Amino acid sequence: MDLNCDMGESFGRWRLGHDAELLEIVTSANIACGYHAGDPLSITAVVREAVERGVALGAHPSYPDLSGFGRRSMRMAPAEVEAMVLYQIGALDAIVRAAGSRLRHVKPHGALYNDAARDEALARAIASAVARYGDLRLFALPNSALAHAAADAGVPTWREAFCDRAYEDDGSLRSRRLAGALVQDPEAAARQALDVAVHRRVRTYSGATMAMEAETLCVHGDTPGAVDIARSVRTALERAGVRVSAAA
Amino acid sequence: MDLNCDMGESFGRWRLGHDAELLEIVTSANIACGYHAGDPLSITAVVREAVERGVALGAHPSYPDLSGFGRRSMRMAPAEVEAMVLYQIGALDAIVRAAGSRLRHVKPHGALYNDAARDEALARAIASAVARYGDLRLFALPNSALAHAAADAGVPTWREAFCDRAYEDDGSLRSRRLAGALVQDPEAAARQALDVAVHRRVRTYSGATMAMEAETLCVHGDTPGAVDIARSVRTALERAGVRVSAAA
Amino acid sequence: MDLNCDMGESFGRWRLGHDAELLEIVTSANIACGYHAGDPLSITAVVREAVERGVALGAHPSYPDLSGFGRRSMRMAPAEVEAMVLYQIGALDAIVRAAGSRLRHVKPHGALYNDAARDEALARAIASAVARYGDLRLFALPNSALAHAAADAGVPTWREAFCDRAYEDDGSLRSRRLAGALVQDPEAAARQALDVAVHRRVRTYSGATMAMEAETLCVHGDTPGAVDIARSVRTALERAGVRVSAAA
Amino acid sequence: MDLNCDMGESFGRWRLGHDAELLEIVTSANIACGYHAGDPLSITAVVREAVERGVALGAHPSYPDLSGFGRRSMRMAPAEVEAMVLYQIGALDAIVRAAGSRLRHVKPHGALYNDAARDEALARAIASAVARYGDLRLFALPNSALAHAAADAGVPTWREAFCDRAYEDDGSLRSRRLAGALVQDPEAAARQALDVAVHRRVRTYSGATMAMEAETLCVHGDTPGAVDIARSVRTALERAGVRVSAAA
Repeated sequence: MDLNCDMGESFGRWRLGHDAELLEIVTSANIACGYHAGDPLSITAVVREAVERGVALGAHPSYPDLSGFGRRSMRMAPAEVEAMVLYQIGALDAIVRAAGSRLRHVKPHGALYNDAARDEALARAIASAVARYGDLRLFALPNSALAHAAADAGVPTWREAFCDRAYEDDGSLRSRRLAGALVQDPEAAARQALDVAVHRRVRTYSGATMAMEAETLCVHGDTPGAVDIARSVRTALERAGVRVSAAA
Repeated sequence: MDLNCDMGESFGRWRLGHDAELLEIVTSANIACGYHAGDPLSITAVVREAVERGVALGAHPSYPDLSGFGRRSMRMAPAEVEAMVLYQIGALDAIVRAAGSRLRHVKPHGALYNDAARDEALARAIASAVARYGDLRLFALPNSALAHAAADAGVPTWREAFCDRAYEDDGSLRSRRLAGALVQDPEAAARQALDVAVHRRVRTYSGATMAMEAETLCVHGDTPGAVDIARSVRTALERAGVRVSAAA
Repeated sequence: MDLNCDMGESFGRWRLGHDAELLEIVTSANIACGYHAGDPLSITAVVREAVERGVALGAHPSYPDLSGFGRRSMRMAPAEVEAMVLYQIGALDAIVRAAGSRLRHVKPHGALYNDAARDEALARAIASAVARYGDLRLFALPNSALAHAAADAGVPTWREAFCDRAYEDDGSLRSRRLAGALVQDPEAAARQALDVAVHRRVRTYSGATMAMEAETLCVHGDTPGAVDIARSVRTALERAGVRVSAAA
Repeated sequence: MDLNCDMGESFGRWRLGHDAELLEIVTSANIACGYHAGDPLSITAVVREAVERGVALGAHPSYPDLSGFGRRSMRMAPAEVEAMVLYQIGALDAIVRAAGSRLRHVKPHGALYNDAARDEALARAIASAVARYGDLRLFALPNSALAHAAADAGVPTWREAFCDRAYEDDGSLRSRRLAGALVQDPEAAARQALDVAVHRRVRTYSGATMAMEAETLCVHGDTPGAVDIARSVRTALERAGVRVSAAA
């Protein structure tokens, strides 16, 4: 099981997240590409640290929305989405290659991730960008429009489950605008991680149980308890005998 | 002799330049990378047209300054300049590769070009970014700090001369803030091009003659008479038996 | 009948529209406020010209989306919309007051205008911003959510009709993504203007006739034929004896 | 003696500073206007808190440089600087008036402040914007180009001294790029404040003593120890019998 986290979400004078600590815990890092966060210099710093620690690197492209942190849906034409995803992947990969490594995956950020789970045209645009760049896998919600588009485009996919976000009964993530969207207790997050990794299921917000197959587990990096949650999840997985690694 | 022109300088709803006509005339295109101009969709359009016509593609990175079109000096730390040049090169190259080609050169834009001609730390930062990306040549003013930094970093350089800009006696370009900075008459631009290509010299604004060795000649794309100037220059070069090509 | 046009939609190096010619024809100018177009210097230039010609000035606030020219819906919280509308009104008014005049109206731009015609929370946020700024009227589609919110907030409204955009049968504007969205023939635009100003009706895209009461008529400024359309509309109105004026 | 602090320097998802605590201590708040920091929503929040506590409000306009936090000099034309300062003052004042108060002062931010201390054309542009807006005072370094330009333009000025920045012998602030630029010890900052407020002098980085007349003292808000420094300064001033107030 891979353990991934969003990183590089500082911007200029503003610091966000706990990249240094989290790089000790996770196995894949999704790096902001400048559209919702991440200036070239702060990206460079986190990329170098990730390379040193052997953490696998991925691009975390977003809608162009610094003031909204990429969390607002924007109605963009698919052709423009494809171009902007290529732009962000290439920009990040240049910095990653200069640091002696290369990109392994792409995970859309925020509203782009959520919209691509449902909107087929958007999903195809993203999958096409990743396919054209080549040699990358996509992280996608299981059974989402993005997962299907990736399969159609011949892009390898890792299904992603979340440790610290609540699920609705249809398998979508509970909206951040609703109460109970976040799982903030480290033990609850660890239980959710074990449910996915060992039992191949997840308990939804309503209390139902649904099947959940995933190759990568996400922990968020920008909450106050992020490091505790990540550590709790990793420890629980290892105790349960799950191999935590970004190796396919 | 190579003939280069800045392109892709539209942004969203705003159109600028005469890319389609100029791609019929020039042999190298310097493509805006989003920092002074060029959104991913408009970049994609011009890149595809350039690839169709066999025009060699280069990156045209800038200071981050959309409202100033990259023509204002900004006091940036060298490490940040290096990171932002890598970012811009990679972003553009992703779009170029998706269009079936690859980048051949880098030419800094506007104030970054002018500052890098004089400021050694800035020049080294740019040359280092290009060296780390690999397999690219730099366009630089002859004898400039950037040309020297490229040589030190082992980056191949093409010396650049200008057809439609006046020169000062020290070999620098006459500032756009001064009268007479632009050569707007197509015949005068053609004469200046021939002076460089055939006679290896240029007449300065003051009337003096100075030696000028160059492998690439720049015509600007964003002036009303840009197409006439470019055509006049190309015709004059060919009539004089100069082979116009981006082949090294 | 007032005749209004969007202006000040240049940005830095990029020019857009025909402000100087249109200021000779229209009676109200909706000035971009920097969020979809309009840097402070280009805003200052068009404001001064409008003041010289006695054209009434209004703010044209937008979603924060330079690369999409404010034509993409963004899912923003109402409190944020209210704050950003106040920000844009105040920014523009400072430049207007420095030019010796003051703002008279506010007309939301692009996707914000269209969304506020339907979304009540968004409409209330905009109306609240205008009410709190004080002493301004809103331009709004008749019977739209924005018109109702303005009435509730005690903000005077001018109902707006369009000369050069096709209407759907429900009174909404035909989407720019569909064929036939624009009325590009100056005579057809003049006919539509007379229909509204004299006969208080409009013919929809489907051929139906609907009642249309309006105090202000919009002509667009950023199309190739904009000046011809505006002149044709103004001439037709005056020949029909309609007084064209921004006086309430 | 007035005690001022920069505030409102968050942006979207990114938080910066200790506005709530500092509003309990200082008497004037310089509020970011969106160009180096401060989105409309976060500006609104801090403005409302300042109005509740009776802290006097000022605009803190900057060069357009979010990624550089306004700390990089940019070579802008004076006419553009004047327009952008008006834009920022008006934008902020709209939010301040909606909160039931009004702006009292303007203090340029970062590189704009430093450049305007030396560059007469830039200083005149800023003073002209403030004069045209009307009814505002400028905060300026004593004897700086900005102070002189304000006097020439008839703009009332408060001379500003710094508690937590080191001075060079010419009265300029020691560059943040040099060691010893910041006074980080609360007691040292309090001593420097008392030196200015009581003894009308300041000790420079080199150890020299120079006269220093000031009506307002600045404490910075974005350092880890900002609140301790501000509290230490205020307590020391009050113990020494200095009345701390924004009343002229």
